[in-house]
Amino acid sequence: MADPPEHTAPDPNEEIMRATYRALRKHGYADLTIKRIAEEYGKSTAAIHYHYETKDDLLAAYLDYLLDQFVDTVRDIKTTDPEERMELLLDKLLVDPVDHQDMLIAMLEMRSQAPYKEAFCERFQQNDEYTRYMLKAVINHGIDEGIFENVDAEHAARALMIIVDGARTRTVVLDEEDALATARRTADEYVTAILSTEEAADGIE
Amino acid sequence: MADPPEHTAPDPNEEIMRATYRALRKHGYADLTIKRIAEEYGKSTAAIHYHYETKDDLLAAYLDYLLDQFVDTVRDIKTTDPEERMELLLDKLLVDPVDHQDMLIAMLEMRSQAPYKEAFCERFQQNDEYTRYMLKAVINHGIDEGIFENVDAEHAARALMIIVDGARTRTVVLDEEDALATARRTADEYVTAILSTEEAADGIE
Repeated sequence: MADPPEHTAPDPNEEIMRATYRALRKHGYADLTIKRIAEEYGKSTAAIHYHYETKDDLLAAYLDYLLDQFVDTVRDIKTTDPEERMELLLDKLLVDPVDHQDMLIAMLEMRSQAPYKEAFCERFQQNDEYTRYMLKAVINHGIDEGIFENVDAEHAARALMIIVDGARTRTVVLDEEDALATARRTADEYVTAILSTEEAADGIE
Repeated sequence: MADPPEHTAPDPNEEIMRATYRALRKHGYADLTIKRIAEEYGKSTAAIHYHYETKDDLLAAYLDYLLDQFVDTVRDIKTTDPEERMELLLDKLLVDPVDHQDMLIAMLEMRSQAPYKEAFCERFQQNDEYTRYMLKAVINHGIDEGIFENVDAEHAARALMIIVDGARTRTVVLDEEDALATARRTADEYVTAILSTEEAADGIE
């Protein structure tokens, strides 16, 4: 058996990721530098360059870290009831996202650079793929249980992600405070009207 | 009566806007300079600086120009039938947008700068307000005619714009070729399931 990791010493990578989070919120993406991240880290730039050569290398690692965090969040959803699970997934994506407004701003800057930076594009695609996979699993489970209509689960998952991404963009670009809440309501309408079989059941009564 | 404008000489502003369009597609937003726009314009940078002090002043004017173009496009929709008019509006927004992929890329870069540049944010808000106003007018007309359910028209217009913005973002960030087509299908599902009264009518039969 391998030795357990020492859990008394702080994980330097975790610390750097937290410093990156704070620096991104403060300075945005364009004005972010390794120096500014080092200031948040409380160590020299060399201490960061030891792990990451460039700002973009560090930020690609940060995007991996965000995906890990989201995976952990989804792991917390214990219910297997398709409708309840769908509700909780949409809440994670739209109601209580980890991101604050200033983080959403920095993320949209990074997202807009995806066409120029392959490492970013890859991470955004991986993140999206994972989220769509989780949504699709719930939809297919609901179809099997007769709770959801026999819809095209791949399309429905993409439709929901379009709503999520639209809300994130509008929050930043239009400074629209209720964009996430409007999107949550829209996603709910979509689930009720397109996925749920309840209405059909009501009609039969 | 005022003299009619001379329509034989090319409008310098129209020429500069077209040059800006070509330069944005070629270089994106971050790498755009007045010099590069002047190259497309075929004149000196001074000829542009005569009209616009900075690149961002010029781009704010360009966003006004885009809104004017969209207003012209909407003016071409002559039908007053709410369902048909809604279809055509959604087509303008999602099926045959003027923008090519490289233009969508440049636009997302500019959109991501809205929190830092008030002039951009204002234009994006104006553009969104106009589009939502047009959608809302169609929805309210449809409600009056009994073709649409008595929904919250303001919310429904925002829901449709979330879908539009989500598709534009995903096209760029994820390099997703069919994001606009998926969004068009989603918007259609929303209109049919949430707005149209037809299903209710079918139920009554």
